[in-house]
Amino acid sequence: MPHTHIMTAYDDELESLDQLIINMGTQVNSMFNNAVTSFVTSDTTLASGVIAEDRSLNQSERHVDELAARLIALRQPMAADLRTILASIRISNDLERMGDHAKNIAKRTKTLAKRPNISAIGSSVTRMSLIVEEMITEVLNAYQHRDVDRALNVMKRDDEVDQLHVALFRELLTYMLEDPANISECIHFLFITKNIERMGDHVTNIAEQVCYVVEGKLFDEKRLLDE
Amino acid sequence: MPHTHIMTAYDDELESLDQLIINMGTQVNSMFNNAVTSFVTSDTTLASGVIAEDRSLNQSERHVDELAARLIALRQPMAADLRTILASIRISNDLERMGDHAKNIAKRTKTLAKRPNISAIGSSVTRMSLIVEEMITEVLNAYQHRDVDRALNVMKRDDEVDQLHVALFRELLTYMLEDPANISECIHFLFITKNIERMGDHVTNIAEQVCYVVEGKLFDEKRLLDE
Repeated sequence: MPHTHIMTAYDDELESLDQLIINMGTQVNSMFNNAVTSFVTSDTTLASGVIAEDRSLNQSERHVDELAARLIALRQPMAADLRTILASIRISNDLERMGDHAKNIAKRTKTLAKRPNISAIGSSVTRMSLIVEEMITEVLNAYQHRDVDRALNVMKRDDEVDQLHVALFRELLTYMLEDPANISECIHFLFITKNIERMGDHVTNIAEQVCYVVEGKLFDEKRLLDE
Repeated sequence: MPHTHIMTAYDDELESLDQLIINMGTQVNSMFNNAVTSFVTSDTTLASGVIAEDRSLNQSERHVDELAARLIALRQPMAADLRTILASIRISNDLERMGDHAKNIAKRTKTLAKRPNISAIGSSVTRMSLIVEEMITEVLNAYQHRDVDRALNVMKRDDEVDQLHVALFRELLTYMLEDPANISECIHFLFITKNIERMGDHVTNIAEQVCYVVEGKLFDEKRLLDE
């Protein structure tokens, strides 16, 4: 009986680790959505909200790290459980950095709000962001259901993001060449699109961790070959 | 006797984990130095070497992760040993990302080599890089000697890097405004200086991990307050 009790408590702890990751991911997706919306609509109040929210995401990362360390010390996990715990440390780190990117977008939005906007860029940024948001939702699903196929699909979508990023880069370059008055604004746009592109890279890292949890391989070999 | 034997093997493993981290750090510092030198001297051969070397750094991160997982599974480490192992996973991740930044500088150097250079920027970039290189050396020392004071000093130096980054940013902006022909080149410079600035952030992360290993706190509280 006591053995069963211990196992149940352990399972509960592993499940709450999973839940912490899902909650962090959901929060990151909402922060990112708000950051991009604040940028496209020049809504500085919304941008301030994103900046303020980043602190609670940092705390969530600490909670994951603390729970992971406690689980390792007290439960001496093996095989798949150990992989889950190690993956949760890496995933929460990626999610925390995604929060930083959302915060950076929000910070630049507040700076940009004082200046005229190049509206043409809004729709391209929105299109790129929508793909990243879908990728975040999908990778959280893949993690929750330990679904490697879904994780691999998420990785593939990162190419779309990279292509849109290159197109946006060229678009911004033409605006800068056309009129030097656009330059300092466009530099902010360049870094915002770079933030979005980096979010896609972090989602790919998380997808790799899903493969690691399920299959025990640390990195996707295919991806290493593509480097 | 068998107990002593086991403990010695375990200590050896922990020590080789430390050594893997120091080797990765030394490699990152040399890659970074080569990347900046290749940029300042327009040496595309040197830049290609940096790009090629990044793969071995990625493999080193995998070795650290594998050894860490094996140590946890077989040795059931507690307290300071467990913290060392968890920190090594995080530190090797930061070092791997620093390698990515060095690679990005080298890639942009290869693109830029086809175009005329703004020599004025070279000395500012070198100055900024030298501080980051010193920070890398110092944080590896702090890690090797579990020296919290040294780690805290490294964190403070990141402000210098950030200040030089802002100054360089303004300098680049004036070049772009002076002559639109400089724009596309200066955008590469912007991202290169951003890469160097990000290297400093990663060194700060590593310094935080030194505090974690020694004091058991996951993050530097002071730094959280400064956010």
